[in-house]
Amino acid sequence: MAAGGNGAAGGGADTKAAFAQIYKTLKEELLADPAFEFTAESHQWIDRMIDYNVLGGKCNRGLSVVDSYKLLKGADVLGEEEMFLACTLGWCIEWLQAFFLVLDDIMDDSHTRRGQPCWFRVPQVGFIAVNDGIILRNHISRILRRHFKGKPYYADLLDLFNEVEFKTASGQLLDLITTHEGEKDLTKYNITVCIVTNTMLYQKVACALLLSGENLDNYSAVENILVEMGTYFQVQDDYLDCYGDPEFIGKIGTDIEDYKCSWLVVQALERADVSQKGILFENYGKKDPDCVTKVKNLYKELNLEAVFQEYENESYKKLIADIEAQPSIAVQNVLKSFLHKIYKRQK
Amino acid sequence: MAAGGNGAAGGGADTKAAFAQIYKTLKEELLADPAFEFTAESHQWIDRMIDYNVLGGKCNRGLSVVDSYKLLKGADVLGEEEMFLACTLGWCIEWLQAFFLVLDDIMDDSHTRRGQPCWFRVPQVGFIAVNDGIILRNHISRILRRHFKGKPYYADLLDLFNEVEFKTASGQLLDLITTHEGEKDLTKYNITVCIVTNTMLYQKVACALLLSGENLDNYSAVENILVEMGTYFQVQDDYLDCYGDPEFIGKIGTDIEDYKCSWLVVQALERADVSQKGILFENYGKKDPDCVTKVKNLYKELNLEAVFQEYENESYKKLIADIEAQPSIAVQNVLKSFLHKIYKRQK
Repeated sequence: MAAGGNGAAGGGADTKAAFAQIYKTLKEELLADPAFEFTAESHQWIDRMIDYNVLGGKCNRGLSVVDSYKLLKGADVLGEEEMFLACTLGWCIEWLQAFFLVLDDIMDDSHTRRGQPCWFRVPQVGFIAVNDGIILRNHISRILRRHFKGKPYYADLLDLFNEVEFKTASGQLLDLITTHEGEKDLTKYNITVCIVTNTMLYQKVACALLLSGENLDNYSAVENILVEMGTYFQVQDDYLDCYGDPEFIGKIGTDIEDYKCSWLVVQALERADVSQKGILFENYGKKDPDCVTKVKNLYKELNLEAVFQEYENESYKKLIADIEAQPSIAVQNVLKSFLHKIYKRQK
Repeated sequence: MAAGGNGAAGGGADTKAAFAQIYKTLKEELLADPAFEFTAESHQWIDRMIDYNVLGGKCNRGLSVVDSYKLLKGADVLGEEEMFLACTLGWCIEWLQAFFLVLDDIMDDSHTRRGQPCWFRVPQVGFIAVNDGIILRNHISRILRRHFKGKPYYADLLDLFNEVEFKTASGQLLDLITTHEGEKDLTKYNITVCIVTNTMLYQKVACALLLSGENLDNYSAVENILVEMGTYFQVQDDYLDCYGDPEFIGKIGTDIEDYKCSWLVVQALERADVSQKGILFENYGKKDPDCVTKVKNLYKELNLEAVFQEYENESYKKLIADIEAQPSIAVQNVLKSFLHKIYKRQK
């Protein structure tokens, strides 16, 4: 499941400290939730499960809610209550990410995540991780209910988290059924299968807009721009999987071996002649390093690096033009801050 | 995960026909949801996945929303719009049940469900079932948004489904970590671990109350009664697992073999002397039929059948008294209709 905006860290040191502090508050509240009578064991389990899965990332997703809210307000410093609410929504986004990662790792049979074993691989956990994933998702509802029920935008907030979850799970389905073992069929790979609507960037801005009292119905253009930026981000991901520096991106790409419907293979299929297509059909999705090399050589032959540079430049130009057509300068600033975090990123 | 109210079927033939028809409408709407661009394959997948998992039950949960709403209104027949909304909420409860069953079957490594293989055991499905479970949960949000957004009780409806999901998943966690392989420890079994708060009965009545324009804050006594009824239902389940007629209940109970924290073993632990406890510690949770027989003989020695009869009578008396203390006769009727469906049930 693609991420969205993990570039340069947002938030100053003060924001980061406040953000970290609010995590403790939110976790304590969840562990003291009167809606459930915990045993000592289950209390301990949930405590550890939250730390294991929600922490460990760089929190850029969550912090960008605070940054966006500041840009929208044109304020460098937020009041205590405003800061608390913005950080809380930021943490809800981190919780949502944790929910997806816990379940994705089970479905992908992954081994490690953020430098430690995937949660379901931890001794004693196993498939209890499925239920833990659901509990993480439910924590978001608990947090929102506690801190936002009664606000005029409460229902919109619930809708927003539901919508992002729905679109992400639907995109995940596409990914799962097309890369299905025994169903390998490159002729089904095209740009529609490759690019799934990624609303995660939009979610951060939408949270900040709701906090600012805006009606999201008036921001469908902003949503479109951020979805487009999410597409650009995803294409970068696919590009970096093959061409990025493994030391820099922190992993060795395996999209070719894994038969992924990557943007690169879709471009290759569009440009290949009959004999080149033959090479792809014969070698794509195989673990054998020779096969991988053949696919990479073909990408070189088809000049996919240049195709990507061209795509990157065009996307940037189009995005800047769309952003500058927005009536609000504050909104432009928010959108540009996201774009500049990801433009020409190397990881 | 315990159910709640699967006794005598509710709803007349007309209600059942309308209910079945509305399923088709809701499914069509989901498959035409503009929020996601389906491929032909994913469209077909979701269509089949919904039918496989949401249908196949007796729909008593869903139908009881309609019945309760009629009792609250004191009307035998509902208007078209009212009927549609009541059936839609009924289906949302069926969808929620499907979501839990799909994921529970993975966690419990089950084989069959409602007379067919569990969804994750269907060829080509496997762990995609985890994502399918999430999609089923998300369908509820989509349905509620489409048909209830704008109603004054929309946020309360979302909260209600979230609350039931949270309590159910929390109860499931307790069950999972106490019956964990390699962690077998009977000394941890007590009535708190055994009885999890079951809000599923309440959910049906709460849906009907919201449809009637009631504020749920005024119905905490009704919630308490229905949670108590849920407890009674769960104790019956545990009792029937051992003493029910397998032909009648449709399965052979295996709580003893599975080391379940059943109400029966908790009663036995409370009543057993040192040597009887020894028998339990030695034989509970083993597949060997001799061990199972020894546990059953001990239950007989401790007269657990009579303990259950006593519990059943006392619960009934207490529930009737609490119900008759309710100010509204219509609410009393709803509560009694649920109680009479489960009192002295044999399956």
